[in-house]
Amino acid sequence: MASGSEERVTAAVLIIGDEILSGRTQDTNLRDIARYLGTFGVDVAEARTVPDVHEEIVAALNALRARYDYVITTGGIGPTHDDITADAVAAAFDTELYEHPDILAMMTARWGVELNAARRRMARVPVGGELVKNPVQGPPGFMIGNVFTLAGVPAIMRGMLEDVGPRLRTGAVTIARTVRVEGSGEGAIAAPLEAVAKGHPAMSLGSYPFYGEGGFGSNLVLRGRDAAEVEATVAELIGVLKAAGVENVREVEAAS
Amino acid sequence: MASGSEERVTAAVLIIGDEILSGRTQDTNLRDIARYLGTFGVDVAEARTVPDVHEEIVAALNALRARYDYVITTGGIGPTHDDITADAVAAAFDTELYEHPDILAMMTARWGVELNAARRRMARVPVGGELVKNPVQGPPGFMIGNVFTLAGVPAIMRGMLEDVGPRLRTGAVTIARTVRVEGSGEGAIAAPLEAVAKGHPAMSLGSYPFYGEGGFGSNLVLRGRDAAEVEATVAELIGVLKAAGVENVREVEAAS
Repeated sequence: MASGSEERVTAAVLIIGDEILSGRTQDTNLRDIARYLGTFGVDVAEARTVPDVHEEIVAALNALRARYDYVITTGGIGPTHDDITADAVAAAFDTELYEHPDILAMMTARWGVELNAARRRMARVPVGGELVKNPVQGPPGFMIGNVFTLAGVPAIMRGMLEDVGPRLRTGAVTIARTVRVEGSGEGAIAAPLEAVAKGHPAMSLGSYPFYGEGGFGSNLVLRGRDAAEVEATVAELIGVLKAAGVENVREVEAAS
Repeated sequence: MASGSEERVTAAVLIIGDEILSGRTQDTNLRDIARYLGTFGVDVAEARTVPDVHEEIVAALNALRARYDYVITTGGIGPTHDDITADAVAAAFDTELYEHPDILAMMTARWGVELNAARRRMARVPVGGELVKNPVQGPPGFMIGNVFTLAGVPAIMRGMLEDVGPRLRTGAVTIARTVRVEGSGEGAIAAPLEAVAKGHPAMSLGSYPFYGEGGFGSNLVLRGRDAAEVEATVAELIGVLKAAGVENVREVEAAS
């Protein structure tokens, strides 16, 4: 793994599947990918969800890979006819798919089953691609250019991610700290928060309100790449909030 | 509400917020919006998640509103400095924001608080827009053109949705049925599923595998707008799977 630098490294996530857009399935892959890449200092800068339609996948992939350092796709690499991600990735890179001999051998050895047409679909990778290990179940994913193509099933996707991180050119890791305000609404917090934010243009300060059985308030998240500045800004924000009459302010572990 | 027709009506969802892209917050609004619009026969055809950056929101909004019948945005309409969605929507429509007198009056009456600058931010709507009721808490959302701008907090967003549905030009409602296969992998299912799908080009047939403590298998979801065709295709699919030697096949209520 390369050591961190001051440069910002970006990624986009492309979620592929009618089941996400219909609301049938709750996506969790974006969150998991974002957290994982964050530990490598790579920021997810955009995410898109597209249906299982060839032209839509190709268009989104080409838009995203031109703009961001990396693209991670999830979904559509199974054996059924609606799994068309590999075809779309190959089309986006103007290349062909071929049956990778290592995958065919692995499937035969591991599964001990006849490789019917459906199963052979899962052995297809784009010419010029490399495999991404699948430590969980089933065939591997692949990477080509700056695009990683992973499974959609969350447990498998997370397993494949472990073979993505070490290949990334990493950026400076972002440090996040959370200041929690209880019993005050955003209306009371906004002005002091903005004043502090204006003094630290290299940082990101966000307010994420909560309310429910446990009361109401807001988690104020401070992000930056300079550890000393982040440390100082946490103290500054707490001081400015208290000076503005906001009570019950304290730093907490990141909210779940 | 208009009665259903055979025309396809589409929507895009634009999720706005650094907290989603950082992985700090798990979005659930896409799923809730998709399910809600589905009951009106409106298909979510694409979703994007963008950061709290003015130019990014404007660009995504203009791309999506030109292409789909409706756009639903969530997030970034609170009172803090990072809440810039209203500004971006106004910019996309080349109009201005103004403080809506009804919202100012409501905030004063309901909250009984001084309307400081932060709270007044939440009264801003684009010139030419209409309000979207908020039955939960806080100020309303708004619509302008074919864009609905809703809160990001899920409970508030769902409340606002109730004032979106009745304004939609509705399409034909999609009927979804689920056939569950237990103990067979997708490799065994793919060929019969594809054969049935080919015979019903107006329908969408997808395979969503599962595995875990309860065993493994796949949920096969059949979607269509013609009730009789959907009914017949469920029976056809079950018959074709059984003829192919796939056991433990039955129709189930939609999987959660």
